[in-house]
Amino acid sequence: MSDFETDRRHANVQVAALFDALLQVPDGPENRLVEAMRYTTLSDGKGFRPYLCYASAQLFNVDEAHAIRAAAAVEAVHCYSLVHDDLPSMDDDDMRRGKPSLHVAFDEATAILAGDALLTLAFDILSDEATHKEAGKRIDLMAALARAAGMRGMVGGQMIDLQSPQLALDAGGLTRLQKMKTGALIGFAVEAGAILGAADEAERHALTGYAHDIGLAFQIADDVLDVDAASSDLGKTAGKDAEDGKVTFASLLGQERARDQAGLLVEQAIAHLSIFGASADSLRQAAEFVINRQN
Amino acid sequence: MSDFETDRRHANVQVAALFDALLQVPDGPENRLVEAMRYTTLSDGKGFRPYLCYASAQLFNVDEAHAIRAAAAVEAVHCYSLVHDDLPSMDDDDMRRGKPSLHVAFDEATAILAGDALLTLAFDILSDEATHKEAGKRIDLMAALARAAGMRGMVGGQMIDLQSPQLALDAGGLTRLQKMKTGALIGFAVEAGAILGAADEAERHALTGYAHDIGLAFQIADDVLDVDAASSDLGKTAGKDAEDGKVTFASLLGQERARDQAGLLVEQAIAHLSIFGASADSLRQAAEFVINRQN
Repeated sequence: MSDFETDRRHANVQVAALFDALLQVPDGPENRLVEAMRYTTLSDGKGFRPYLCYASAQLFNVDEAHAIRAAAAVEAVHCYSLVHDDLPSMDDDDMRRGKPSLHVAFDEATAILAGDALLTLAFDILSDEATHKEAGKRIDLMAALARAAGMRGMVGGQMIDLQSPQLALDAGGLTRLQKMKTGALIGFAVEAGAILGAADEAERHALTGYAHDIGLAFQIADDVLDVDAASSDLGKTAGKDAEDGKVTFASLLGQERARDQAGLLVEQAIAHLSIFGASADSLRQAAEFVINRQN
Repeated sequence: MSDFETDRRHANVQVAALFDALLQVPDGPENRLVEAMRYTTLSDGKGFRPYLCYASAQLFNVDEAHAIRAAAAVEAVHCYSLVHDDLPSMDDDDMRRGKPSLHVAFDEATAILAGDALLTLAFDILSDEATHKEAGKRIDLMAALARAAGMRGMVGGQMIDLQSPQLALDAGGLTRLQKMKTGALIGFAVEAGAILGAADEAERHALTGYAHDIGLAFQIADDVLDVDAASSDLGKTAGKDAEDGKVTFASLLGQERARDQAGLLVEQAIAHLSIFGASADSLRQAAEFVINRQN
């Protein structure tokens, strides 16, 4: 296995163990909520964002338990966003990670509440001393997460995305949308490692550039896969964007140019990592994974 | 005006000014989200939770700007919970604070996202240095808010509430539900003042007891009002609980015993405040307000 595959598996096994411990099912009628939170956090996703957090923390020899807690916070926010985005009034998607979406497996109300509770859990995790003994580091993590996930980041991006069939976005508009909707949280995943590791200015700058480029490449690759792949490979409904009348990088640029663009971004992302030498090999492989994955 | 009315007005005018400043409408398609956040945070609520935070902070001469930021975080979480609870798949309520619910005025997707963004905004507000220069105090606030709002607090309570028509709750079960659903956030509002004011053990204990008792009294009074009042007075749909087949304190105890119970709780709440002397008069009047209000 490559460094990337080893790290990805290692990080996600530990994140799952943490969710399992945090989400012990209570003995009361609120158990339905916790079951729903387990359904989504313990499902079989790519675990790309937790990996990024873990691998970026590794560059600075961050205590592994700290990195895993930050990675779990990232994953909790990612899961919440998927659960809410899949709702009938949003993207109305019945399938996610190869199984029924949460609102299908449970119901809409439970899905809304489970998303709410996962977002809250992310801040709960970060606020705990177990994440870092210095309050200042925990505050930096929480402030950065609130920025990335909030109205000027992920949620704002989803608001634009929902309106996109009416917006006739050009490549610039679509890039801005994706920077908010997916880029901001990918950026936070990498930034969290830098915060925990007390990275210097140049290191932070390199990691921010890396995250920006792979974030956009990730989305372009998603758009290309959405056209190419079968639903069974994706684990979610394929061809959904075109059906919904949404502009995508594939529809704007065509499949081939979109693929080229993603490839260029990955090269650029890797170039940012030069200051870290061989210790960033895992992140380099992760960048390649972004465009070579099948789902 | 009583101390309480003066303080309540003063706190809420300032909280509204802070929301107005934080929620400047951007020049892009995400403006819809920010408009929706303004619609709910700048609507005409009782402002009871922000008041509690402000008044409890006043006991310790907390810097007013700090208290108002914490109060705004409480109100952001309260508004998010109302917006999500009113959704068709939850309590399905078309009216709130005397005007159409957010999902009626905008649409369901926007309401879900605005709720998400308001929850995130609460943590954003608390993480900022403007809330307190000590990172430790900000962490304590954020940890307490995450606990109060999360799966073991408010969201867990809403999960139970949704299932309550099937649960045949007794008074004990209903009390537990309300302690989670409404009590936890009211508790946080008061606790936030104590955290900012570095209250000692005895003061915290007194305030926790006070918050517990008025939280429960508040809910009992709500149940009584839901039976007695007209929708136009409540600013939301009256008689909704009975219609939904939900057990309430009014249906369990009868209107009269429920009123008596709320009265006893208010006396108990006021008794907790004795260690603060006259400086807690505003909080005493607030406790009376809980059972004497018309909406």
